[in-house]
Amino acid sequence: MAAEQKRLRIVPDQAANAAFLDDFVVMSGFGVTPAGGVERQAATAADAENRRWLAEWLSDRGFTVRYDRVGNMFGLHELVPGAPYVLAGSHLDSQPRGGRFDGAYGVLAAAHAADRLRRYHLDNPGRAVHNIAVVNWFNEEGSRFKPSMQGSGVFTGKIDLAAALATEDGDGVSVAEALGSWDMLGDTDVFAVGPQHTSPGHTVASYAEIHIEQGRELDKAGVDIGVVPSTWGADKYEISVIGAQSHTGATAIADRQDALYGAARVVVALRELADEYGDDLHTSCGQLNVYPNSPVVVAREVNMHLDLRSSSDELLEEAAAKLARTFAEIELSADVEIERRFAHTWKGHTYQPEGVALAEDVIDELGLSRMRVRTRAGHDSTNMKDLVPTVMLFVPSVDGVSHAENELTLDDDLIAGVDVLSETMARMVEGEL
Amino acid sequence: MAAEQKRLRIVPDQAANAAFLDDFVVMSGFGVTPAGGVERQAATAADAENRRWLAEWLSDRGFTVRYDRVGNMFGLHELVPGAPYVLAGSHLDSQPRGGRFDGAYGVLAAAHAADRLRRYHLDNPGRAVHNIAVVNWFNEEGSRFKPSMQGSGVFTGKIDLAAALATEDGDGVSVAEALGSWDMLGDTDVFAVGPQHTSPGHTVASYAEIHIEQGRELDKAGVDIGVVPSTWGADKYEISVIGAQSHTGATAIADRQDALYGAARVVVALRELADEYGDDLHTSCGQLNVYPNSPVVVAREVNMHLDLRSSSDELLEEAAAKLARTFAEIELSADVEIERRFAHTWKGHTYQPEGVALAEDVIDELGLSRMRVRTRAGHDSTNMKDLVPTVMLFVPSVDGVSHAENELTLDDDLIAGVDVLSETMARMVEGEL
Repeated sequence: MAAEQKRLRIVPDQAANAAFLDDFVVMSGFGVTPAGGVERQAATAADAENRRWLAEWLSDRGFTVRYDRVGNMFGLHELVPGAPYVLAGSHLDSQPRGGRFDGAYGVLAAAHAADRLRRYHLDNPGRAVHNIAVVNWFNEEGSRFKPSMQGSGVFTGKIDLAAALATEDGDGVSVAEALGSWDMLGDTDVFAVGPQHTSPGHTVASYAEIHIEQGRELDKAGVDIGVVPSTWGADKYEISVIGAQSHTGATAIADRQDALYGAARVVVALRELADEYGDDLHTSCGQLNVYPNSPVVVAREVNMHLDLRSSSDELLEEAAAKLARTFAEIELSADVEIERRFAHTWKGHTYQPEGVALAEDVIDELGLSRMRVRTRAGHDSTNMKDLVPTVMLFVPSVDGVSHAENELTLDDDLIAGVDVLSETMARMVEGEL
Repeated sequence: MAAEQKRLRIVPDQAANAAFLDDFVVMSGFGVTPAGGVERQAATAADAENRRWLAEWLSDRGFTVRYDRVGNMFGLHELVPGAPYVLAGSHLDSQPRGGRFDGAYGVLAAAHAADRLRRYHLDNPGRAVHNIAVVNWFNEEGSRFKPSMQGSGVFTGKIDLAAALATEDGDGVSVAEALGSWDMLGDTDVFAVGPQHTSPGHTVASYAEIHIEQGRELDKAGVDIGVVPSTWGADKYEISVIGAQSHTGATAIADRQDALYGAARVVVALRELADEYGDDLHTSCGQLNVYPNSPVVVAREVNMHLDLRSSSDELLEEAAAKLARTFAEIELSADVEIERRFAHTWKGHTYQPEGVALAEDVIDELGLSRMRVRTRAGHDSTNMKDLVPTVMLFVPSVDGVSHAENELTLDDDLIAGVDVLSETMARMVEGEL
């Protein structure tokens, strides 16, 4: 081990790790809920407060803080004038009553890793070939503004900037208005990346992200770190089930065109589809709104958001086709119409194998255990990996709980993750990826 | 016919009927929707505006307008000092995007009938043994404030006054606040009826209500007027389906406790129960709220309002017991808990046969066609019939449509209904019921 540890640029340091845990406790206070989760949806007051705290943290350590035209937040540190940047981060926004680790851990880990690197290069000038930047992507969660991964989607040219800025929440407040109200919307881009970025700007060499697993594979296996070789594909869309409003008491069952009955059939069909494919397909409906939603009125319309994910793009297509046939059956038997309204799809893709190998070397040299874990959830790295070489790391989630207030990753796992990310980024900054 | 018509106190009059239709057009403008329905939920601005118009209409004709302690609105006309009142009316509040006939027709019909009676007794003094009052019951619909039939429920002692006043809408506004803001909440009772009325007040001799059928029996049979001999029983309650919040992408299907999946199974089970019993059981879920209702979060909780109705109390009990067993199955297979939260039940009961006979005589003497129709919907008369002799009349609904903007009753049917109600009330005022 001694010989191997000599290869480490960023040697694990107890004081630095204690500082990380202290900062994480502070950050978990923004939007804290009584049950110990956080309520920090994109561009709400709690999200803005957290962002301001991070901006100050970065500024205090000499990072230049900037917002791009969709509210992505960057902390830049230049080591090699004009050189591309190694970018690392995740997202500070949360689900409603979400957990305190999802996203936030990755942003703070990247900030601490970047600061360790900054100090390392003060002592070791001339070794860097790239610069360092921390990123807090806007609206990864997609709960207040749809779709999810919006900031990184715009950054990578997958989502139209104007459409993203015009997106409204349930109260009719747009992304542009919400970000503008906190003064967190830039008027130029920070990086010149992707087709939508016309102004001159910095370039990105590579990207790294660490995140809680949000599944139980690492926890079950008792492994320290997951390295992500590929993503599941996802097919997300909204449907409207259209019926006819009538009286719950007086209207004969045969005369009803009950939109909620049709919608319930869709929810049940979704689950049956997942059961049919075993663990290779995840299906969900998390959002469903009933109109007029009165106790004594048969619903005229239900809007719902469907979410299908699989490790296999082919299976996903097959499942979607089956579901479409089921819709046709439900339309007939429930006497409703089903309209497809809005879609957001990503295909399953691999992360660069060189990045996986780099991370695995680092983990081995730190004496930690590792395994490969495909991600079923989307992450900002899902977007970034299509643009630049990208490393995606996981730390364990106790019992796999996520998007919930009782989400938990143990301190030792948090610290191991920061160590792995720091060393991985150190090698990326020296041009190893 | 000539001999029979001599028995009529209130002879049908073309000018009076034209005036009724004109007034109904005016009233249908309060809260009118683009599709020709009305949005006039209890104690909203549109409801208050309509109430103010009616108050003025009644005052102009010499009626004394008063509000009781739960916002029921009365128009009183004294013929015999100190004598009990014949009360007639319905409700002006509507469902969200409801129809313009439901309730509103019955209130305006009662007002016109009462005014015809007032004029009749000016010309025929000494024939009355009772006084006349028009009533607009508060919150019959139960969409903004639950439960339905709230005003008549308090009036008849079936709902606690304090509980009703404290009931909040979705925005946390209470019934007392909402009514108070329009100055439509009295500080004493108008009638001394039922166990909650402590102050001295008038008494009620009998009650009459006319309403659209909200079913298609009259329309199908081509019959002018329905006389209601009895009600269906109803069993309404809220349940909460409790699961656990998790990630729609990352969480394995086997690990999910998806509250919305459990709720969807309940909605489907409700329909299957109705299918099992044929036309003797109506089941519905019209209101369903998902928490946190985010596209990428498996729901932790769903609150829903169930509605079971039958002509047979025994069948209703049997169906409720079956549903409870189905809940237990769903709890196991969907890994959720189902909590029963709030109940509102009424048993099927008969209207006084003497009232049915009286109305049938009137209809025959007016040369109109009639049939008996049980009501599946609840009405304020459902409450009143347990207190005083009550006559409930229906006019046809085209295609049985109700609680919808395209609700329709034809002018000739509206007019026939006012004629029948006027003559029925005339006989009630002379002590025939």
